[in-house]
Amino acid sequence: MAVIDGRTWLEILGHDVCRDLLQNEEVGRLGIDVHGHPEIFPVNYAMDGEHVVFRIDPGTKMDSLDHDGIVAFEIDEFDRGEQTGWSVLVVGQCRRVRDTEELRRLSELPLVPWAHGEKSRWMKLIPTNITGRRLHGKA
Amino acid sequence: MAVIDGRTWLEILGHDVCRDLLQNEEVGRLGIDVHGHPEIFPVNYAMDGEHVVFRIDPGTKMDSLDHDGIVAFEIDEFDRGEQTGWSVLVVGQCRRVRDTEELRRLSELPLVPWAHGEKSRWMKLIPTNITGRRLHGKA
Repeated sequence: MAVIDGRTWLEILGHDVCRDLLQNEEVGRLGIDVHGHPEIFPVNYAMDGEHVVFRIDPGTKMDSLDHDGIVAFEIDEFDRGEQTGWSVLVVGQCRRVRDTEELRRLSELPLVPWAHGEKSRWMKLIPTNITGRRLHGKA
Repeated sequence: MAVIDGRTWLEILGHDVCRDLLQNEEVGRLGIDVHGHPEIFPVNYAMDGEHVVFRIDPGTKMDSLDHDGIVAFEIDEFDRGEQTGWSVLVVGQCRRVRDTEELRRLSELPLVPWAHGEKSRWMKLIPTNITGRRLHGKA
């Protein structure tokens, strides 16, 4: 049964739906704090259970993620013609993966960066909160 | 002439290209600080010159935007098959529009919220920085 927010008429997506949507996408957006304000960067990713896994290059703005900060990760899809769409927001702690055995396991994920660069650092986002909304349009 | 980042091979988009892309989209993502960590929310928007204009409901998480904080706003488009895409990131200050004359002028923008709700607060993001990247794929 769909749960609808009475004010916005947005459908609140259940955890399993959010998980399926996360499993099916390849590109999301990281929201991270850079010098005291948020910035947003697209990344391609893969899911490892409930963890969002992605790769970064050292020396970039995303390097600050190595310090276990809380970040946001978002995926969405919109149809301009229909004015419909959905979004899923993951909030959690980011950690650099250093354990050899874990790195070996993660290397089997379907995660090949689209951009050039070695992207030698494997990161995982450990969700504390996963929420999703679907917009059905006003028609 | 395209400017290519030597490490990632991402093309760095010029200001005019970023502006055209902002002009042509309808939905972007706001990155805002919520209780000390970033969160990301899709919004539909319209451009008023270089200002990103959108509408919110009072009493939501976006209400904190009323305090002139620095926020991020991102648009993008990706092709999973080709592994190509682009993104534009705007960083700047958010202000609630209160001036009657300005509100009248903004009401003529093509900005009708997709979601239900009165969305009575008009907000503008005044950019301090607009950057864009295009990913041409590895092929």
